[in-house]
Amino acid sequence: MVNLPHIYTLRVYYEDTDAGGIVYYANYLKFAERARSELLRSIGSGNIEVMVEFGISFAVSSCAIKYRRPAKLDDMLEVRTGVAKIGGATITMIQEVYRGSDRLVEMNVQMACLNKVGQPTRLPQKIRGSVSSFGLT
Amino acid sequence: MVNLPHIYTLRVYYEDTDAGGIVYYANYLKFAERARSELLRSIGSGNIEVMVEFGISFAVSSCAIKYRRPAKLDDMLEVRTGVAKIGGATITMIQEVYRGSDRLVEMNVQMACLNKVGQPTRLPQKIRGSVSSFGLT
Amino acid sequence: MVNLPHIYTLRVYYEDTDAGGIVYYANYLKFAERARSELLRSIGSGNIEVMVEFGISFAVSSCAIKYRRPAKLDDMLEVRTGVAKIGGATITMIQEVYRGSDRLVEMNVQMACLNKVGQPTRLPQKIRGSVSSFGLT
Amino acid sequence: MVNLPHIYTLRVYYEDTDAGGIVYYANYLKFAERARSELLRSIGSGNIEVMVEFGISFAVSSCAIKYRRPAKLDDMLEVRTGVAKIGGATITMIQEVYRGSDRLVEMNVQMACLNKVGQPTRLPQKIRGSVSSFGLT
Repeated sequence: MVNLPHIYTLRVYYEDTDAGGIVYYANYLKFAERARSELLRSIGSGNIEVMVEFGISFAVSSCAIKYRRPAKLDDMLEVRTGVAKIGGATITMIQEVYRGSDRLVEMNVQMACLNKVGQPTRLPQKIRGSVSSFGLT
Repeated sequence: MVNLPHIYTLRVYYEDTDAGGIVYYANYLKFAERARSELLRSIGSGNIEVMVEFGISFAVSSCAIKYRRPAKLDDMLEVRTGVAKIGGATITMIQEVYRGSDRLVEMNVQMACLNKVGQPTRLPQKIRGSVSSFGLT
Repeated sequence: MVNLPHIYTLRVYYEDTDAGGIVYYANYLKFAERARSELLRSIGSGNIEVMVEFGISFAVSSCAIKYRRPAKLDDMLEVRTGVAKIGGATITMIQEVYRGSDRLVEMNVQMACLNKVGQPTRLPQKIRGSVSSFGLT
Repeated sequence: MVNLPHIYTLRVYYEDTDAGGIVYYANYLKFAERARSELLRSIGSGNIEVMVEFGISFAVSSCAIKYRRPAKLDDMLEVRTGVAKIGGATITMIQEVYRGSDRLVEMNVQMACLNKVGQPTRLPQKIRGSVSSFGLT
């Protein structure tokens, strides 16, 4: 079992649920993106910051998700995130959504580093160094 | 009872519903925006078109909504839209959401015409003329 | 200027924004609903709690919104909420969204108390008493 | 290259986009779910229909997505869907999102058939037969 060092907590509101009484499947991708944004912000690489400092942004290039159990209205959830791999122009993260000790959803997300015109570009050295502190260990 | 000349139809999917088993209240604003986009597109003033031709975009400046009855999963809905008032830099629309002959939601939406830096600007004469064809009569 | 005693803070993520570079207009209704949920939870009347204890839920019956200035990606926002009026089966709240001292959005929201089959029903006495602690003054 | 027999078309609206000027990555899962709903409806197995007739619903159990190119505001998209595999209690679909001849997104989605209490249950024979008409070849 991998160690996912970054923790982001959130509450499930009506907006997140659907008529099945559970969290709509696409919304876990929103939760995961909030968590990745906060992980990057915590190392000084928030969305606006990397645009201003490096002229880059991140876009998800691929994503695999396994839905184990549903989350429900009012649940408090934790998104746990770890950096699995840092490539030349990509970062791969493992993200898991927990309710207490129950692992509800597992995701593997590959992000591409893009320049201002949306082309892949090398990950700035500064980000490469700091993001590695969230490695899986 | 006013005549609302523009009709936009849509299906309710899981994404639109919430754990109460009905359409989430904010999502009617999405439906209404889809309808306004199509109304404007039908007179050659789609979102991208007005940006390219006039350097403008539309933003909602105020909105009043009355929720009468809920819509549900799989419902086919109609958004009926009419132009209530055309000001110097604003358009006011009446929008109603129907399921068959049942009026579910009523909205009064004021849109502002904005220039490239987000400041209010005069409505182009061409749009003023063509949008008036969707008046309430 | 009214005093809005309940404060809910949130961050703006990519999911909240649109191609105009600002928060999509329907999403302020999500922010407002999160805030109302937390206000009610703080007095022991969370969404699940009132369903279990009283067999009721709340639905928005009408809503008026004024958009003054746009919020942007990464902004930290405050939703300030106060209870304007408590009727037999309704609660009316004033909600304002701030970025620092800038008031971005103002909302007036009327909520109806509904029973298990979605019909209006009297507000439980316990909720009536506790929610009045969030009055405007 | 596989043949994906079911076609669902949609327009990209402001609600679907984000501050990067492109469709937000989670929203392709909404588009895909709309398409699967229409595929199932076309064989008499719409969301409400299968609930009423068989007491079942479908939930996504896993999903893999590859984002190749971004979609933008006002784009007309096609979601092409084919049934890759029909298991005892699961259906696996391939879904691809096109803008004209450009393949933007590829998805592999496994759906589980659930009973009224959310437990996996055998796929009704009638659905098994009719859904196979959307096989890949």
